[in-house]
Amino acid sequence: MKHYKAYLIDLDGTMYRGKQPIPEAKVFIDELKFRQIPFMFVTNNSSRTPELTQEKLINFGIEAESVQIMTASLATASLIKEEKPDATAFVIGEDGIIKALEDKGIKVVDKDPDYVVMGIDRDNTYKKLVEACVHLQNGATFIATNPDIKVPTEKGFVPGNGAFATLVENVTGMKPEIVGKPTGHMLYIALEQLGVEPSDAIMVGDNYQTDIQAGIRANMDTLHVQTGVTSQEELRQYSVQPTYSIKTLADWFD
Amino acid sequence: MKHYKAYLIDLDGTMYRGKQPIPEAKVFIDELKFRQIPFMFVTNNSSRTPELTQEKLINFGIEAESVQIMTASLATASLIKEEKPDATAFVIGEDGIIKALEDKGIKVVDKDPDYVVMGIDRDNTYKKLVEACVHLQNGATFIATNPDIKVPTEKGFVPGNGAFATLVENVTGMKPEIVGKPTGHMLYIALEQLGVEPSDAIMVGDNYQTDIQAGIRANMDTLHVQTGVTSQEELRQYSVQPTYSIKTLADWFD
Repeated sequence: MKHYKAYLIDLDGTMYRGKQPIPEAKVFIDELKFRQIPFMFVTNNSSRTPELTQEKLINFGIEAESVQIMTASLATASLIKEEKPDATAFVIGEDGIIKALEDKGIKVVDKDPDYVVMGIDRDNTYKKLVEACVHLQNGATFIATNPDIKVPTEKGFVPGNGAFATLVENVTGMKPEIVGKPTGHMLYIALEQLGVEPSDAIMVGDNYQTDIQAGIRANMDTLHVQTGVTSQEELRQYSVQPTYSIKTLADWFD
Repeated sequence: MKHYKAYLIDLDGTMYRGKQPIPEAKVFIDELKFRQIPFMFVTNNSSRTPELTQEKLINFGIEAESVQIMTASLATASLIKEEKPDATAFVIGEDGIIKALEDKGIKVVDKDPDYVVMGIDRDNTYKKLVEACVHLQNGATFIATNPDIKVPTEKGFVPGNGAFATLVENVTGMKPEIVGKPTGHMLYIALEQLGVEPSDAIMVGDNYQTDIQAGIRANMDTLHVQTGVTSQEELRQYSVQPTYSIKTLADWFD
């Protein structure tokens, strides 16, 4: 096994399963710490701040610094900051994205924004969607934190951010730049923060279509773990395979 | 020219253009009245009641009884009434659809509906869309008043009912039954009310992809008028042509 200088790691299905712990995940993280290998969690969730995710991980016995949590919101803010340091943004989204943008000095505005940023917003309204459509038709740049169309809940599937971003795309004819998985943007930004080249790092996750795809697109090696969405059988159907696929994270550091 | 026993007539682009009158339209309607030929307006608008549309027409000098206005909402209520007379419905929509359903004795409910009915709702929220998705996954039947993805306004395109219906379809995997144009449902229901067979009636409209398509699907003859969306040049590209195409409605009763 190659020595990787950094690990990027998915959360749900990899570190825990909904509200259930995955015991091998804690052992894996403890081993990374013991070997002092840098790592960062990468999540498409745009509504939670890193601090809230940090608290969630502690419930599963996994301790991480808040700087070790890269969210699609933080990555979106970094991306905009890089493109246009004094940018303004009209935002559909919750605390996670609004705080991330403001922390980077991006002004959240209602009028004449440079960007329209969409993240999941459980207070979304017809009026907000109209405004997003109008701003885009007036020339704003369209960014979506993540493309998830539907999110599983105990009541069934409910709309994810991708469902609303697609609605706005259908009305305006404009495709959003997607920051979260399965694109490589968020992973590149995480690696930049760690100062590690993609070729020296590995992306760990359970979901081929998001985690492994993102790793592949970010030119990283990939480690698929069979504790979540994509089974070993399903994995075989894909023409581009992950670098490794293991049953649980206990099989990694032997 | 064949004698038609009834005329179904589109509104915007055919009777008026946005806020502008089309003088030939008034002459055409006056001629229908003079000849005592039954006619009915058919509109995909689901938010306005027939009475509000009646008022709008009077501004352009066109007088009609409210029973001569068939909306996608009235047609939706008739369709449900036919399928299940004691049905309940969860509704995303405005006054037009809610009143139409209640007038037909269909109970508008929040829990365990037989139908999820979607019409344009300018008070739409994330919560309403979640509820629609959940009801559908619990077995409700999905009906959309009309499929319009985008609606032109002076500020640009804004989302139409079809944009939200598509969002719910993307999340649930369930396709709605569409009542308005370009399907034939609304036209069949209008003709049923007039007691005229489709083969004895004609559909009049400016938009090939909605009005003329709906007429074709309802097995009616069709009259395309070049005062709105579809130009004579554009019309040529379609393999199935309308029965007639004329420059203005003044060219019809010569």
